[in-house]
Amino acid sequence: MKYEIDLNSDMGENFGPWKIGDNVDQKIMSYISSANIAAGFHAGDPSTIRQTIEWAKECGVAVGAHPGFRDLVGFGRRHIHSQPSEMVNDILYQLGAVREFTRLYQLPLQHVKPHGALYMHLAHDQLSAQLFVQALHRLDPELRLFCLHGSWVWQEARKLQHPVICEFYGDREYDASGSIVFTRRVGALEPAAVAAKVVRACVDGKVTTIDGEDIPVEFESICIHSDTPGALALIQATREALNNANIHVCSPF
Amino acid sequence: MKYEIDLNSDMGENFGPWKIGDNVDQKIMSYISSANIAAGFHAGDPSTIRQTIEWAKECGVAVGAHPGFRDLVGFGRRHIHSQPSEMVNDILYQLGAVREFTRLYQLPLQHVKPHGALYMHLAHDQLSAQLFVQALHRLDPELRLFCLHGSWVWQEARKLQHPVICEFYGDREYDASGSIVFTRRVGALEPAAVAAKVVRACVDGKVTTIDGEDIPVEFESICIHSDTPGALALIQATREALNNANIHVCSPF
Amino acid sequence: MKYEIDLNSDMGENFGPWKIGDNVDQKIMSYISSANIAAGFHAGDPSTIRQTIEWAKECGVAVGAHPGFRDLVGFGRRHIHSQPSEMVNDILYQLGAVREFTRLYQLPLQHVKPHGALYMHLAHDQLSAQLFVQALHRLDPELRLFCLHGSWVWQEARKLQHPVICEFYGDREYDASGSIVFTRRVGALEPAAVAAKVVRACVDGKVTTIDGEDIPVEFESICIHSDTPGALALIQATREALNNANIHVCSPF
Amino acid sequence: MKYEIDLNSDMGENFGPWKIGDNVDQKIMSYISSANIAAGFHAGDPSTIRQTIEWAKECGVAVGAHPGFRDLVGFGRRHIHSQPSEMVNDILYQLGAVREFTRLYQLPLQHVKPHGALYMHLAHDQLSAQLFVQALHRLDPELRLFCLHGSWVWQEARKLQHPVICEFYGDREYDASGSIVFTRRVGALEPAAVAAKVVRACVDGKVTTIDGEDIPVEFESICIHSDTPGALALIQATREALNNANIHVCSPF
Repeated sequence: MKYEIDLNSDMGENFGPWKIGDNVDQKIMSYISSANIAAGFHAGDPSTIRQTIEWAKECGVAVGAHPGFRDLVGFGRRHIHSQPSEMVNDILYQLGAVREFTRLYQLPLQHVKPHGALYMHLAHDQLSAQLFVQALHRLDPELRLFCLHGSWVWQEARKLQHPVICEFYGDREYDASGSIVFTRRVGALEPAAVAAKVVRACVDGKVTTIDGEDIPVEFESICIHSDTPGALALIQATREALNNANIHVCSPF
Repeated sequence: MKYEIDLNSDMGENFGPWKIGDNVDQKIMSYISSANIAAGFHAGDPSTIRQTIEWAKECGVAVGAHPGFRDLVGFGRRHIHSQPSEMVNDILYQLGAVREFTRLYQLPLQHVKPHGALYMHLAHDQLSAQLFVQALHRLDPELRLFCLHGSWVWQEARKLQHPVICEFYGDREYDASGSIVFTRRVGALEPAAVAAKVVRACVDGKVTTIDGEDIPVEFESICIHSDTPGALALIQATREALNNANIHVCSPF
Repeated sequence: MKYEIDLNSDMGENFGPWKIGDNVDQKIMSYISSANIAAGFHAGDPSTIRQTIEWAKECGVAVGAHPGFRDLVGFGRRHIHSQPSEMVNDILYQLGAVREFTRLYQLPLQHVKPHGALYMHLAHDQLSAQLFVQALHRLDPELRLFCLHGSWVWQEARKLQHPVICEFYGDREYDASGSIVFTRRVGALEPAAVAAKVVRACVDGKVTTIDGEDIPVEFESICIHSDTPGALALIQATREALNNANIHVCSPF
Repeated sequence: MKYEIDLNSDMGENFGPWKIGDNVDQKIMSYISSANIAAGFHAGDPSTIRQTIEWAKECGVAVGAHPGFRDLVGFGRRHIHSQPSEMVNDILYQLGAVREFTRLYQLPLQHVKPHGALYMHLAHDQLSAQLFVQALHRLDPELRLFCLHGSWVWQEARKLQHPVICEFYGDREYDASGSIVFTRRVGALEPAAVAAKVVRACVDGKVTTIDGEDIPVEFESICIHSDTPGALALIQATREALNNANIHVCSPF
């Protein structure tokens, strides 16, 4: 039974003149406690990063970097078969870019959360996970790493006692192994259902899989993606349900 | 008469598999005292930035960021007609990216020197210069700004008492106004002539213009570009001539 | 008094996962007669180009290429100070890319219309206009060039008797010189007003400037931009008003 | 025993101000019969494409397009996990871009040869190979496809009776299966050895594998990569050896 939980969302994923999803970042900002700021390789640009961090500051939301593969047209959802060292350097570059804007606003950089195909790769590839966590730990041993409980990146972080924040995905389905299942969804998600699932995960530590079974889930943060259609309603409903259950939403810092 | 002088060069300007100029950054590094590291928008990539900073550390060379316009194919030599705020944000982004790698190697970030068309624009456009210097000063009041004596960026920095390092261009010609003249050169520069010109500038504070006149020059750093053909020989000759004149080459930090 | 007129709009200006404007290209396609397909440098990507050309074919809309400066983040609205030869080569590259997809669908490539800052530059810079028109004429002497009456690109095309299609901008204001005025608009445009302005231009050959004066306009095509807010309603109203005035909307081919 | 053979090389792989390999494209052009022109996604830019095609025309070399993954920094050597349809559209885009410049010089576009990781992917993935060959055949049933004998792209082309040109790699090693082995080479290749290997392949139809065994090889074109160190010497030696063996070097057109 949790009394406190972080609520995170990917923010600043527009690019230049283009919009993604419902383009409601500023509104979402008042319901979340941690913002993962797109860092320019898969989405985001310097002016968008700055604007998004300004909104985060106004709302008292903790800021993290959200680096991705260098793949604008594919939105970082496509795996690029890179050398692990190259992948790590791409992450550090993006991390620094976001950190510089937090410095401008005298905010700490709280966390890093890789995006899309990069997130999945670091979850599943031990060597990449190891090199990434080692560089991160050497760079900034306090920078929280958002990840999936049990993933390689999580295991490597534990080895070095690097601080991690495990995530529960409010807008994704789980299978029996605890993995996230990517399903092509027909309709939009139901806010009440998402909110109920999240509250249950917080209260009972359980989620029902796509096979109808209950599995345990360990997490310190809930993620709802801002580019999920109807994201704002999902996040509002979730925040309200957490409030009603007396679970305080706040960043892990 | 100077007893100490900084010697700077643009470093890390390769991109991916491609090389620029004579590709002798590692060798040049042992003759200079400040390295301006290309930050990814006009040249450079994360792995190149890291490698270049590693070399700088090995040689005890001070590290700065060398941000440019977002223009790879044009190498940042083309002016992009941007909003000043956009330009400033692009600079901060690149600055942070380079700074993160200095953090990894536990080095300070000593300076920032804009590249190519961006350098010229900040020298000549007061509004852009003002917004840039204000952001820089708010961000990091100790970060040295490399610039031309008398340029707008220099004037704006003086208003805020932001530390500047004025440059003398060893491999460029001057006109009577003290501006740099871009001439299409037929042959390569003569190392002995460049070295003599630099030593004279240090000793007498004067340079001969393209019209044959002597003008005074004020500077704390000498710049020789690494992509000038024969750059290594120019830098070696200059360093040796400075040594022979008992002028100590060291970074301004 | 015109009995026939072309109605063109910029199409395919999304990029990867991102949307621009109201994202109603497919609907707009059934109201226009010429589509200017973004060619990848300022907007558009290969899959978007293909999809947009498929829609154009379904609707019997003539296809043109819409090349821009190599400036995704700035949407080709920023002038990049390039060599004229470089600019021309960038246009040819993009033109060929779009032409290849018309070949796949066994459609002719009807026209070329440069985008944004490139359009304005070719209107105002004689040397660039000349080199562009010469290359275009050598490449494809039948490829219609969309431009402003009286602009440099128009004058150079006339010299070579290269076919031009002059445009009237339904969603822009004119000044006394016949130039387009870029005003920051407060509210959305009124469809009925745009439609009436267009019909009057077709019937009387006149438009009222921002100073309240009437000036003559010469054109063979009406342009309404697809990224103007409410673009679909403007285009629908214009098309209906043209129908009611017995002015047939059809491509110039 | 062959009396005629094509000799191809990848050309135009510089990017903006950067050079790759020994930067000797213009010299190589006088020894080869087919040039694969980098098309902008992994290397090359519009002005480089144009210059390279001009050189090809001067030397009477047949021109083909050399499309790659959209991966400049990785030089198209990294696999990007894309949808097959997206991959095909990226190829068509690049193909058209190169074709437009051949049109400007009144040259035919002879062939297409995918680059690097894209070449390997189309060799090994049947679905991608099928979609690519189908689109190519619909687009231009005469456009020769350069590929490896026995690869998926070769098999799919044969199904549609699309013309293929099989390649023999003069500067690569083979294994017993006839596949190319990527080995990190210590020194440069010996021109005489490469030339002898190529002549033997032409005369006897055999190559010795890395295991010392002889295997048969089927091909109509020899490829020597322009970015192999010492490429010019390898190509010169090969051309001379072919001349001495009375094997005429000419394009397959």
